[in-house]
Amino acid sequence: MDSMTFVLFGATGDLAKRKIYPALFNLYMDQSLPAAMSIIGLGRREWNNERLQSHVREAVTAHCKREIDEEKLQSFLEALRYCRLNITNLEDFGRLHDLIKQREEELKLPENRLFYLSVAPKFFEGIAANIKESGLSSTKGWRRLIIEKPFGNDLETARQLNRKLSRSFNEEEIFRIDHYLGKPMIQNLETLEFANPVLQSLWNNQYVSNVQITASETVGVEKRAGYYEHAGAVRDMLQNHMLQMLMMTAMHVPQKISPKDIREVKRKVMDALVPLNASTLKKQVVRGQYTRGEVDGELVAGYTEEDGVSSTSKTDTFVAAKLLIDNDFWRGVPFYLRTGKRLEQKSTRIVIEFKNPLKDLYNNEEESTSPNLLTIEINPNESITLQLNSKSLTRDGKIEPVHINFSAKDKHLPEAYELLIFDALKGDPTFFAHWNEVELSWKWIQPILEAFENDLIPLEYYEAGTMGPKAADQLVNDDGFNWW
Amino acid sequence: MDSMTFVLFGATGDLAKRKIYPALFNLYMDQSLPAAMSIIGLGRREWNNERLQSHVREAVTAHCKREIDEEKLQSFLEALRYCRLNITNLEDFGRLHDLIKQREEELKLPENRLFYLSVAPKFFEGIAANIKESGLSSTKGWRRLIIEKPFGNDLETARQLNRKLSRSFNEEEIFRIDHYLGKPMIQNLETLEFANPVLQSLWNNQYVSNVQITASETVGVEKRAGYYEHAGAVRDMLQNHMLQMLMMTAMHVPQKISPKDIREVKRKVMDALVPLNASTLKKQVVRGQYTRGEVDGELVAGYTEEDGVSSTSKTDTFVAAKLLIDNDFWRGVPFYLRTGKRLEQKSTRIVIEFKNPLKDLYNNEEESTSPNLLTIEINPNESITLQLNSKSLTRDGKIEPVHINFSAKDKHLPEAYELLIFDALKGDPTFFAHWNEVELSWKWIQPILEAFENDLIPLEYYEAGTMGPKAADQLVNDDGFNWW
Repeated sequence: MDSMTFVLFGATGDLAKRKIYPALFNLYMDQSLPAAMSIIGLGRREWNNERLQSHVREAVTAHCKREIDEEKLQSFLEALRYCRLNITNLEDFGRLHDLIKQREEELKLPENRLFYLSVAPKFFEGIAANIKESGLSSTKGWRRLIIEKPFGNDLETARQLNRKLSRSFNEEEIFRIDHYLGKPMIQNLETLEFANPVLQSLWNNQYVSNVQITASETVGVEKRAGYYEHAGAVRDMLQNHMLQMLMMTAMHVPQKISPKDIREVKRKVMDALVPLNASTLKKQVVRGQYTRGEVDGELVAGYTEEDGVSSTSKTDTFVAAKLLIDNDFWRGVPFYLRTGKRLEQKSTRIVIEFKNPLKDLYNNEEESTSPNLLTIEINPNESITLQLNSKSLTRDGKIEPVHINFSAKDKHLPEAYELLIFDALKGDPTFFAHWNEVELSWKWIQPILEAFENDLIPLEYYEAGTMGPKAADQLVNDDGFNWW
Repeated sequence: MDSMTFVLFGATGDLAKRKIYPALFNLYMDQSLPAAMSIIGLGRREWNNERLQSHVREAVTAHCKREIDEEKLQSFLEALRYCRLNITNLEDFGRLHDLIKQREEELKLPENRLFYLSVAPKFFEGIAANIKESGLSSTKGWRRLIIEKPFGNDLETARQLNRKLSRSFNEEEIFRIDHYLGKPMIQNLETLEFANPVLQSLWNNQYVSNVQITASETVGVEKRAGYYEHAGAVRDMLQNHMLQMLMMTAMHVPQKISPKDIREVKRKVMDALVPLNASTLKKQVVRGQYTRGEVDGELVAGYTEEDGVSSTSKTDTFVAAKLLIDNDFWRGVPFYLRTGKRLEQKSTRIVIEFKNPLKDLYNNEEESTSPNLLTIEINPNESITLQLNSKSLTRDGKIEPVHINFSAKDKHLPEAYELLIFDALKGDPTFFAHWNEVELSWKWIQPILEAFENDLIPLEYYEAGTMGPKAADQLVNDDGFNWW
């Protein structure tokens, strides 16, 4: 791994504290950072190096789940420098440049510079422009930009943002974080699909009857109403995480395993996604919002009763959609996606339901068979389960479903941010969202955004603590299926 | 289930004590015996009802693995009657007939009579003839014959035996016990293969590279040298249990699930089995015999040092064979069978190894993939395992095999004899060996018997506590595979 400078915008912020510092320190403990590395934290506050270092110490102590080696923590902290910076002030970027160069000299670093924008999206463009303007990105080494979500607010704003960023960075230099792509089991999808002939041969419309992707949360809007009121479940989850999971599930074997080839097969999925129109929108999309109810035995408020939410808000806290992929692999196989807040259960999972052409063989009551299911549990417990039909091994001779299961729950798995930062340090873009994917996602989502805005799809209320509105069940029931 | 009389020849014997009485009592505890049932035990010894009842009490107490309900045991024992019988004496059969009729009247039983021959094979013909001669089998109800293995000693003697039995019983009335067919996981094979579209679609030469069936024992010849010296592994295991497992594995979906249709697809496997000839015999069959070695940390004698074994014995205590099935499903897929005594491990299992057409996608060292395997563990721990390739969920990104697994080891499973006797009481012949299967098995085995007898296949010695002779490894290695 190349030696480098790691420049963190938003060094005093919440994400840095909870995710980025613990991830960096875990990588450091595992000797997975470059041998020589300068880390520079930026913020508007009047902090100094010591203040940043003690802040990072607290962050790591609070959020790192492993036992901390004090000696290693100390030497990790010593690599940190703080630089006060107003991101609209070009002169401040000059001072930053001086600090970067000074540390490059001290540590004998090549001019490899990674800029991590852990700031509100409205600052993305300005920072990127100032990085260029100030000469920070005119390096003899490489330069990379890590950027947090959301990438735009709709198709148009996403395109604008990308145009502006591309004045300062090339597409290969931009690493757009979608932290779902950092989850170990999502990263495993590629291997599961491509390294297992038995799964690969079943991975098409000859054998699959439907695919269900669920990301359900039990939490409500919490303290993020300001953001969420303008986002809703479609922008918060569907456009990015859910469509990324769809791409990772539906992609087909590439020519070879390389970031470029994987991106190509992901893009092909988006290209083949049947666009929604006025008529299909109403049949294939369900918009929901939670009302008061009971979650985990506790009474909770309805969405419009939450702090910071308008009492007449029609924001979607739940969305379900039926997607069709028009290619030879998936023609005729519905992909059902659903995501929402204040649902019964916290779970992110992908369920592949297989066709059951043999069911007529077993047609008496005791011998009815269930469909074969492959369930990939992404969160909270990473597992792979294949549901098969088995004869009860006791004497009653009944056929019953058995679950053949692999679970990683006893292992210590790395956090998504650890995996993603590690990949960005290596320069591996596989698990970052390419602009093509982002643009095609917004493009597919755009009609839903407009339909919600114009109230063309009814807002279905669901009680907190349930699995969403009845209309979401109807969506799959109408095709003869059930949510698993 | 019809009320009936259960007539047990060999009531004072070892098999009755260890297997039949415990199985009957377990069925009784589960209310799985007919409401009214007369059980008559026969033997040469001068026992009476009380003696038989106290013998059965001991047998059940010693060999029944469940907690015994004393009240139920008492009422079970009351159904038992003893009748002294010399099986060559027709008059004794007359007395037996009187007893059967007397009990039928007492218990108001229809004349349904099941005769269970738990005696040495040399008595089979005589008993069957006397059953007919004495009028025992001229009933107004049904009659059935349960017969223990071995069924003949080679093709010719098996045919003779069958001809003689068929004078007294029709094929539908004969239930030939192969206790491997009573093992819960073997009984499950049909459901696994036919009720799971994902497995069914993979169950052919397009996806399967080879199939391995292993039945390995750690015990030696024990006290059965008298029998084993004339049998060897081929007669003791290969002709019956191993070929039955082969049939159950390789059979293809029948028109419908019925005993007749299942038998038909099993027979088709045997019909398609490529016969061995002088040249293929040497390449496809390995004959082995154990020498002294260490099993489970204990030094054990070699076969020729065992009590009752000739010091120059060439009896096979191990046999491995490569079988080819010439039909559209399995053409080109080798089925490797191996079985032996004094091996490293006690295990009966079927391993389906799948082809790996995608292996070139992952060709660097860290990413090499293992073949997908489906392992069906029959004994001692019933389980189904699918070996998949997965990315290590930790950060090293290596591809590693994971085992997705279903295990029944926590459940109380019924004994093979419980399942088989239950089926015979119901009259369900599915898990008994049909004459066609027995005849075709002997026919396929016959060239091996002759080659062993004429020493045309070298006897390979293997150390006790290993997995058999090196030649058995070579057998699969030569095709580019390994034993799993």
